[in-house]
Amino acid sequence: MSADTTTVTHPSRRSFLAKAGLGAGVVAAAGSVAAPAIAQSAPQVTWRMQSSFPNSLDTIFGTMETFARFVSEATDGNFTIQTFKPGDIVGGLQVLDAVSNGTIEAGHTPTYFYFGREPALGFGTGVPFGLNARQQHSWWHFGGGAEIINEVLAPMNAISLACGNSGAQMGGFFRREINSLADLKGLKFRIGGLGGQVMARLGVVPQQIAPGDIYPALERGTIDAVEFVGPYDDLKLGFHEVAKYYYAPGFWEGGAMLHAVFNLEAWNGLPKHYQAILRHAAEAANNWMLAKYDSVNPDALKELVSKGAELRYFPQDVMEAALSAANAYYEETAAQNEAFKRAWDSYRAFRDDALLWWPVNELAFDNFMARTRGRG
Amino acid sequence: MSADTTTVTHPSRRSFLAKAGLGAGVVAAAGSVAAPAIAQSAPQVTWRMQSSFPNSLDTIFGTMETFARFVSEATDGNFTIQTFKPGDIVGGLQVLDAVSNGTIEAGHTPTYFYFGREPALGFGTGVPFGLNARQQHSWWHFGGGAEIINEVLAPMNAISLACGNSGAQMGGFFRREINSLADLKGLKFRIGGLGGQVMARLGVVPQQIAPGDIYPALERGTIDAVEFVGPYDDLKLGFHEVAKYYYAPGFWEGGAMLHAVFNLEAWNGLPKHYQAILRHAAEAANNWMLAKYDSVNPDALKELVSKGAELRYFPQDVMEAALSAANAYYEETAAQNEAFKRAWDSYRAFRDDALLWWPVNELAFDNFMARTRGRG
Repeated sequence: MSADTTTVTHPSRRSFLAKAGLGAGVVAAAGSVAAPAIAQSAPQVTWRMQSSFPNSLDTIFGTMETFARFVSEATDGNFTIQTFKPGDIVGGLQVLDAVSNGTIEAGHTPTYFYFGREPALGFGTGVPFGLNARQQHSWWHFGGGAEIINEVLAPMNAISLACGNSGAQMGGFFRREINSLADLKGLKFRIGGLGGQVMARLGVVPQQIAPGDIYPALERGTIDAVEFVGPYDDLKLGFHEVAKYYYAPGFWEGGAMLHAVFNLEAWNGLPKHYQAILRHAAEAANNWMLAKYDSVNPDALKELVSKGAELRYFPQDVMEAALSAANAYYEETAAQNEAFKRAWDSYRAFRDDALLWWPVNELAFDNFMARTRGRG
Repeated sequence: MSADTTTVTHPSRRSFLAKAGLGAGVVAAAGSVAAPAIAQSAPQVTWRMQSSFPNSLDTIFGTMETFARFVSEATDGNFTIQTFKPGDIVGGLQVLDAVSNGTIEAGHTPTYFYFGREPALGFGTGVPFGLNARQQHSWWHFGGGAEIINEVLAPMNAISLACGNSGAQMGGFFRREINSLADLKGLKFRIGGLGGQVMARLGVVPQQIAPGDIYPALERGTIDAVEFVGPYDDLKLGFHEVAKYYYAPGFWEGGAMLHAVFNLEAWNGLPKHYQAILRHAAEAANNWMLAKYDSVNPDALKELVSKGAELRYFPQDVMEAALSAANAYYEETAAQNEAFKRAWDSYRAFRDDALLWWPVNELAFDNFMARTRGRG
C-alpha cells in the first residue's frame, strides 16, 4: 500500500502544539503510572477536525463523524477527534488553510477544492472524465496517486488520506431540456471547480452560489441549472420542485474522493501506531460513505421520479465536446505546470489501462445485469 | 455501519484459550507495571490465521498478510497474527471448521466455500448474477448482509468481517469456442460452488480439481475449460498455453467477497478496541485487495493477449439460460431452507434496487468512458 511510504520529516509535535496554542494536545496517560513505554503506547490525544460540508448532508458529514468514532473506538477512547461543521472554526473552503497553519489538526475535505491554488490537487478527488470510484481508489494506492498528491500538500504543511467517495455524481437539475450542444450557450449553471471550467468552454456560464441560496435562485430563474451530488442529497434540497429535468451522468465527478487532511507536524508527532489507526479508520470510513450512498440512492431516485423529476441523459454531442474540452484543458495546464503534468501523466496512463480492462469484464457483467435487471 | 451491532454474548476468552490449549494467548503487558487499566489497554495477543488460498496467489494470500500487518501496526506490535497457508495447519477448505473448533483463532476464506453445509453462506461472497463488488459491500454493511451471514455463522461458533474482493472474475479459459448453449452439453468445466451447480443445469459437467492438477488436465483434454480468478492470477497459471479462448464475464462471481473469520469465543474475549482495530484493518485490507487487482489486471490482460489468448464473450443465450437457471435454483432452495430464504429475500431486494439506480448514472458514465476510452 503506497501510503505506507510517506516520508516522515518533521517530528516536531510539541513545537507545533505550542505554536498553535490550542486547547488540544498530547498529554501523558492519566493516573500515577509513569512508565514511559506504557505512556507511549496509548497517549491521550485530542484533535479538532472540521468538514467542508454542512451537517445537513448527513452522509458526507457523517463520514467525518464515522472516521472520528472509529479512531476513538480503536484507541479505547484515548484519541479523541472533535468534529466541527463549516463556520464553527473556519469557512468550508478554508479547511486546508486551517490545517496548514495549525488552527485545526485535521479536516475532511476533497483536495480538488484547492485546485485553484495548485491545479494538481484536482486529481486527488478526480477530474472531468476521470476515474470511477474503484479506479480512483486503485490509482490512489497503487498508481502513485497518494504520493503525488501528498508531495503537492507537503509544502502546505499537510498530508492526506483517502476518506470517502460519492460514486459517480448526477448531472443535476435543469429547468429546460438540453437537446444539443447549442442549448448550453449562455446557460447559467451552478457548477464549481474543474467541471465549471470545462463547461465554460462549451458556452456555459458557471455560477458559484452557496448551498442555501441555490433553491431560490433556481426558482426565480436567476440560474438555469444546478448540480450537487446524487439523488439522496439532491432530494433533500428540493431542486426537483423548481427544475424538472434530472440529468445523468455527472461526467465531471465520476468517482469523487474525499480526504482526511492533517497538519503535517501534528501527523508526524503521532506515535506510528496512531498513524496506522488513522490510516485504517480512513479506509473504513471511506467504505462507509460509498456503501451508504449506494444503499440510499435508489430509494431517493424512486421518490424524485414519483414527485415529477424526469430523467434525461446529456446528448452525445455535449459529452463528446466536454471530453475534448477537458483533455485540452489538461494538456494546456500540463504544459504550464510541472506538478500538474506529473499528476496528469500518471492519471492518464492509469485511465488508459483501466479503460482497456474494465469493458472486457466488469462492464460486460454490469451491462448484462442492467439489461436484464436480473429478471427480478 | 451495521457490523457495529454484532451481539457479543460469550466473553469467555480465558476459558476458550484454556480449552483450546494453544501456544497462542493473552498475557499481561510485559514489564513491572501491573496497573490493570494499562494492561487492559494494550494486552499482548498472538493469534494464528490460515488462508484457504496458496501463497502463490500473492494478491489473495497477500490480503491476509496485509490484514495481519495492519493489526500489528495499529497495536504497536501487541496484537500479532501469525499467517499460514493451506496445509500448514488444516486444508484450504477446512478453514471455517478449524476456526469453529478453536484449532485456529482466525481464517481468511470466502464464506461461499461452505455453502454445501449452509447454502445461505453463498450470499456472503456473492452468487451467480449477483451484486458487483461495490454493491456487495453496500449490501454487507447497509443491506443486512453482515447480520444475516453472522447469524448463520454464530451456531458454528464463528463471526466474519468483509476482508477482500476480487471484482468481477473472468469466465475462464476454454479449449474450444462456445457459440451457443448447445456447445455446453457435456463440457467438462473446472468450476466450483454455486457456479458449477448453475452450469450443470445447462449441461456442463462441473469438475473439482486441485489447482496444481488443472494445467495438465487441461493440456491432456481431461477437462475442456477452467475458470480461476482474473488475468493477473490466470496468467501465472499458464492456462493460455493450453487453451486459447478467454471468456468474459465470469457471471458466477460478479464481485466475490472474502472474509476474515474468527472463532466467536476468541473474538468475544478481545477488548472492544481490539475488535474495532480488527474491523478497520479488515476494511483497509479489503480495499488493498481490490485496488491491487484493479492495478495489475490490465497489464496481465495485455500480456495474455500478446501470448495468443483470444478474448470472447459468452453468447447471449448462454447468459440468459444461466440467469434463468440461477434464479430457479435460488427459488427452489429458498422454498426448502429458511436461512437461505431470508438471505435471498434481502439480497434480491437489494439487487433489484441496485439495478434500478446503477444504469441511470454509474453505468452511463462507465459506458461513455469505455466507448471513448477517454480519447486517450
